[in-house]
Amino acid sequence: MLRCAAFQFAFFAIMSLFTPDAALAAALQHKIDHKTKPLGALGRLERLALQLGVLQGRLDPSLSAPHILVCAGDHGALNDGAGKGLSAYPQDVTWQMVENFLAGGAAINVLARQADMGLIVADAGVNHDFGPRPGLLDAKVAMGTASYLSGPAMSASQCQQAMEWGAQVVADLSAQGCNVLGFGEMGIGNTAAASLLTHFLADVPMTDCVGRGTGLDDAGLAHKRAILEGIAQAYQGSREPLALLAQFGGFEIAMLTGAMLEAARRRMLLLVDGFIVTSALLVAAKVEPDVLLASVFSHLSQERGHIAQLQHLNAEPLLQLDLRLGEGTGAALAYPLVKAAAAFLNEMASFESAGVSGKN
Amino acid sequence: MLRCAAFQFAFFAIMSLFTPDAALAAALQHKIDHKTKPLGALGRLERLALQLGVLQGRLDPSLSAPHILVCAGDHGALNDGAGKGLSAYPQDVTWQMVENFLAGGAAINVLARQADMGLIVADAGVNHDFGPRPGLLDAKVAMGTASYLSGPAMSASQCQQAMEWGAQVVADLSAQGCNVLGFGEMGIGNTAAASLLTHFLADVPMTDCVGRGTGLDDAGLAHKRAILEGIAQAYQGSREPLALLAQFGGFEIAMLTGAMLEAARRRMLLLVDGFIVTSALLVAAKVEPDVLLASVFSHLSQERGHIAQLQHLNAEPLLQLDLRLGEGTGAALAYPLVKAAAAFLNEMASFESAGVSGKN
Repeated sequence: MLRCAAFQFAFFAIMSLFTPDAALAAALQHKIDHKTKPLGALGRLERLALQLGVLQGRLDPSLSAPHILVCAGDHGALNDGAGKGLSAYPQDVTWQMVENFLAGGAAINVLARQADMGLIVADAGVNHDFGPRPGLLDAKVAMGTASYLSGPAMSASQCQQAMEWGAQVVADLSAQGCNVLGFGEMGIGNTAAASLLTHFLADVPMTDCVGRGTGLDDAGLAHKRAILEGIAQAYQGSREPLALLAQFGGFEIAMLTGAMLEAARRRMLLLVDGFIVTSALLVAAKVEPDVLLASVFSHLSQERGHIAQLQHLNAEPLLQLDLRLGEGTGAALAYPLVKAAAAFLNEMASFESAGVSGKN
Repeated sequence: MLRCAAFQFAFFAIMSLFTPDAALAAALQHKIDHKTKPLGALGRLERLALQLGVLQGRLDPSLSAPHILVCAGDHGALNDGAGKGLSAYPQDVTWQMVENFLAGGAAINVLARQADMGLIVADAGVNHDFGPRPGLLDAKVAMGTASYLSGPAMSASQCQQAMEWGAQVVADLSAQGCNVLGFGEMGIGNTAAASLLTHFLADVPMTDCVGRGTGLDDAGLAHKRAILEGIAQAYQGSREPLALLAQFGGFEIAMLTGAMLEAARRRMLLLVDGFIVTSALLVAAKVEPDVLLASVFSHLSQERGHIAQLQHLNAEPLLQLDLRLGEGTGAALAYPLVKAAAAFLNEMASFESAGVSGKN
């Protein structure tokens, strides 16, 4: 019998983050429409420029001190006999990849450097003792979550703690002038947790929420699906978003949820990565729907459940590159497009200023 | 009665540019597969890294002195009574936009700057006397093409001249160390010429080749389609690629064709933009199919005929952003992805070097 995580909405009250300024939006659209190009010819970049201007409340929005926040955590379900086979890789890969982040050799290190973005790596609850380590943000709630196969992955207070760590790191980044933040994660087994969250929060059939993760074969995928369908059917607890978050975890997803809510509250631009990061956003958007006004969907992941999440959110991804890596790699790859959107809005001439004729 | 442009293949002989090295390709794939990420998890970027390595014949390909070449030209069909309505904008916009390029205010100026790419603006045959102008490459063949509504747009020797100008600018860029080149264009009316080239070279029904260009309405689109279908049906001349290029123009397309062939011969990476640039590539690929091994398709344009071109070439665009601006804007926007592909190949750790465990 599964127990439900008792939960109180102690930390984040439902709030209206901001009301978009209709007059400003119209002025931004006018500015975009009078640039020296056919109407609408910059396509998706024009909608992005409009979103950024409205978010910042400015006709000349700017981007500063861009960062990627990667939160890492482990999942107790992998250490539970019944959870065997939820991932193609052993749990040790989580801490080993954190070491790889700290050494600068992972994909997100390379891609964040390419995009001139700072990188924050946080231990939200990895099942490993790193000791004090330069470059690693210690936000460890516990040595991995408990197994959701036999109860809640975390307590309500642990969930709150992880969310507060997320909010705190965003507050610190904001104090340094950061107004655009990409979100990434590392956690062997976290596609399973994300599948459960997506099933309950986006009302998607479980079968459409479960994918190969780091690379399960057909038999492995069928086994993972069977485990997760069993969990979902047995769950009788609360459907409140933070209760579900505590029930299924993980700490890295909770930390990302707290970070996203704080970033949106500060009107930072959120660069949402793939399936796991979007599961954190599903939680955040249930708590505070306006978080979506600050969200840019970097890419469509190849992980199966991502397209269902994006459809649920009516989201339009910038990139479609068959990525399925996580770590915030899609966010880093999409950031140059965000810079391009701000740049054309701020730097392009208008028909009038350039002396270019209009339509026949 | 339409006359056919008599044409000789004087300039570009059919040649085999290079034979991909199968052993190197296998070594590159092995290198990609042992990076610290699930197999294939960087999706499209992995195929791009492989292509770049094979093109350069190196396990550690590098990108240097990236540029965008924008070729501008005018189309005589617009000054022909029967060609009225082929574009939503007057012909003067071609030279006015060249002035905008020189002043730094156009989309491609902004986006090339963002991407740290140099910009070369060439007058391949604009119907305007710019005089000697710093920053403008004078490759003017004539004051615009003749009208293909009553004969060939240019003579064979004019076509050859434009292609030679294109090859020359690439040779000069190569001498400066440039090994990656994006292609762009400006020319009011050039979607019409590109439609005719696409119809004949990619064997696409005319109706699928004709789009709104800079913004025709439904009636304008129907009128443009009717004009171009009439032209296509009446044409009885040679189907040889350079004969078609001379028949329908424009000078900017011919210059791009010559530039692409020379760039591929030098094993530079070609960043192909949208519909008009791809029409130049259709010509180049008929002359020398290996040019496709050097080509990266930056994006899928919203201009109707582009998807048919890409399908004909079995090409996989990097971006899908509903762009329809030209100027090389898609190439500039895609370039950061190319840099990212080279960077992950060169800079990411392997499972072995990072001490990360493999699959279960």
